[in-house]
Amino acid sequence: MTNSARLVIRNVTAVDPGGTHTTILHNRDILIEGNRISRLTAAGQTHAAEAGYIIDGTGMVALPGLINTHAHLAMVLFRGAAEDVTIGSWFNDFIWPMESNLAPDDVYWGAMLAAAEMIESGVTTVADHYFMMDAVAEAMASSGLRAHLAPTLFGRDLRTELNASAEVISRRQGAGDGRIRMWLGPHSTYLCPPEFLREVAAEAKRTGLGVHIHVSETAEQVQASLTAHGLTPPAHMEQLALMAVPMIAGHAAHATEGDIAIFARHGVGVSHCPKTFLKLAAGIAPVVAMRQAGVAVGLGSDGAASNNTIDIFEQMRLAAELQKHEQKDATVLKLDDALAMATVEGARVVRQEQEIGRLAPGYLADVILVRMDGTHMQPVHDVRAALVYSARASDVDTVIVNGQVLMEGRRLRTIDKAQVLKEVTGRANRLAEKGHGRRLAEYPV
Amino acid sequence: MTNSARLVIRNVTAVDPGGTHTTILHNRDILIEGNRISRLTAAGQTHAAEAGYIIDGTGMVALPGLINTHAHLAMVLFRGAAEDVTIGSWFNDFIWPMESNLAPDDVYWGAMLAAAEMIESGVTTVADHYFMMDAVAEAMASSGLRAHLAPTLFGRDLRTELNASAEVISRRQGAGDGRIRMWLGPHSTYLCPPEFLREVAAEAKRTGLGVHIHVSETAEQVQASLTAHGLTPPAHMEQLALMAVPMIAGHAAHATEGDIAIFARHGVGVSHCPKTFLKLAAGIAPVVAMRQAGVAVGLGSDGAASNNTIDIFEQMRLAAELQKHEQKDATVLKLDDALAMATVEGARVVRQEQEIGRLAPGYLADVILVRMDGTHMQPVHDVRAALVYSARASDVDTVIVNGQVLMEGRRLRTIDKAQVLKEVTGRANRLAEKGHGRRLAEYPV
Repeated sequence: MTNSARLVIRNVTAVDPGGTHTTILHNRDILIEGNRISRLTAAGQTHAAEAGYIIDGTGMVALPGLINTHAHLAMVLFRGAAEDVTIGSWFNDFIWPMESNLAPDDVYWGAMLAAAEMIESGVTTVADHYFMMDAVAEAMASSGLRAHLAPTLFGRDLRTELNASAEVISRRQGAGDGRIRMWLGPHSTYLCPPEFLREVAAEAKRTGLGVHIHVSETAEQVQASLTAHGLTPPAHMEQLALMAVPMIAGHAAHATEGDIAIFARHGVGVSHCPKTFLKLAAGIAPVVAMRQAGVAVGLGSDGAASNNTIDIFEQMRLAAELQKHEQKDATVLKLDDALAMATVEGARVVRQEQEIGRLAPGYLADVILVRMDGTHMQPVHDVRAALVYSARASDVDTVIVNGQVLMEGRRLRTIDKAQVLKEVTGRANRLAEKGHGRRLAEYPV
Repeated sequence: MTNSARLVIRNVTAVDPGGTHTTILHNRDILIEGNRISRLTAAGQTHAAEAGYIIDGTGMVALPGLINTHAHLAMVLFRGAAEDVTIGSWFNDFIWPMESNLAPDDVYWGAMLAAAEMIESGVTTVADHYFMMDAVAEAMASSGLRAHLAPTLFGRDLRTELNASAEVISRRQGAGDGRIRMWLGPHSTYLCPPEFLREVAAEAKRTGLGVHIHVSETAEQVQASLTAHGLTPPAHMEQLALMAVPMIAGHAAHATEGDIAIFARHGVGVSHCPKTFLKLAAGIAPVVAMRQAGVAVGLGSDGAASNNTIDIFEQMRLAAELQKHEQKDATVLKLDDALAMATVEGARVVRQEQEIGRLAPGYLADVILVRMDGTHMQPVHDVRAALVYSARASDVDTVIVNGQVLMEGRRLRTIDKAQVLKEVTGRANRLAEKGHGRRLAEYPV
């Protein structure tokens, strides 16, 4: 089905994570017209004539699609290739030897696998940060997902990199019926020198683009910034005028109190990627303090080479669990907060909070249906608890983006999964042989 | 299918987590005769005549069934009923008002739901700690699972409780073709007075039973024990001779260095339940130190009222992630260790390491098959990484216990899931109305 005129989800529990309060409406019909949610009514109040395509939501919960605010999609090609090693060894001994051999077609097929995984996991919007971004944009456009794409600037050659970036951005901005939005993607303050970042800030200001950048991922990065500039990475970026434009700060695991005040002052959105932090022993971001300061904190998968999956349900659960643990207080980061981070707060991070992240009339029709009949979900004392602490990505039954059905009854509509898995296996084998000299375990798909 | 004479799993990747090293054998046939694994051969080497029932394992990994070393199964009835509250409020305001209204039939149907959830999640053995244990034993026997059952002793009336416990134990010991084994279940050192525990120790010694008990779940418990007895809970239990018999120590989140030495000296097995610790902000057990000291550390789900699911894949992943985080060292609790905790180490905890937890000839035929073709699993650079960091419980395709197929192609063979969900919903509604005055969100099943 392509973007149909009308679509009705019948007899569903509509869950709208407004922010501090989650609205739960049982037995509702959701009417979608074009690419927007037009009405929520009592079940059965939409007439057959106006219904168009009908999806039966009986026994399911409708949620706004989940938002992945920081990813390196094509790194699914390296899933599980570097385990139980330090961050330095992870990159130098395993990832870069493979990554440096990537061709644009590899990135395209990696992004297609990631797209399939995201749709199957209920992710409808992703903010990606990678190179060969034309290939990623192609994959996002054809998969039907919504994407905020930042071509990585490594901080080596200002003019060459900025020009190449500008070309990709002009080719892809607004593609896929407006689903694709472009950002500038300076890698980090530790790879990009100050004069480079100052020019990126000027370019962002001139073009109206936002900046997606890695921030304070490790304690060592913060220390190095203090040594080199006398400032933490956020304070350094503020000084370079990088925060005069919209910013997605990836990770921010080691944000200080002062950094949090800087984020709040400039409306910087933070992408929290807890599984990566844990696996690489990099420390945990002070999410509760950030949220108390009014900072938008969304959830991110980071790359599958460190996170292993692109599963925002898993990140949501970990985010809540870890803040309770770190704060030694079981009452912090409550169910409503966790659901908000995965949806409406993620929308704030990518600066689309007027259009996505809510299940309400007027919002873009990015909607997922989650089955509630699993033995791990029942009985349902609290719908929110079932979604945050019991649900698995595999409970997602149906995914709609921009009014288009991308998955129904767990069957993908826009992606040929068998072809993607075949392409990816071949390419991962080539990269593995070049990178670490071993072929992969192959399973028939 | 009942316990067939012969069963062959064809063309599977056999994964045997031996402990420090995981053996991975591709393209194998696994021959099961009666209730035991008899042979692993190259694929196609088992002849049709000797094959009996055939399961095609193509594209799948065979693992020993996962072992859940500490549970309160019937608490699935309270799943999601008490969220974002302190431990005290969790028990007094939410759980006990419902739990105190439980009838044996509620416990039976709760345990049946838990059995269905465990089978669907690849758990083949569970150590349960609860009251009305006849009902749990019935559910375990009819579901086909392997179970170590400890009727809870609350420490109030020694003779009455020990006599009642002895009766349940004599009725159920060895039931279900030997799948059911009974333990003594004193609740904890904070509920059971010293003289009570001394008598339990004597009874255990006399009968040859082991003891399953809660140990040092919170810092407050440790402090209270130090105040009352001048000893940590493990040191107190050692003094009471409770460790002269096999012991499962549930939680042990706040085990000290001295406690770890005590566990090691007496061969105490620890059940690590990380999701509960995080959700209730109770602290994290020093798993790495315990394992270095030679203590067997298995994984436990605890009750679904605090953990929300009975998912050992989730506990395995959390266990590894959290030790890396707590130790600030990404190289600790490696893939092999995590897989061992879920299988062979769990077998040591329940004192069945000669019979379960390995995928090897002579071991009891408790085997699960995991699909490897998911978009979140591919490509497979490392089979172990796919199992530890990517796999979801929903990837479990087939479950065999004691040579009997309990699930195949995700269809349960021994449990009528629709009936269980119907019974559970009605009962949870009654308990919720009595306990917190609200009815549940009901979803057609």
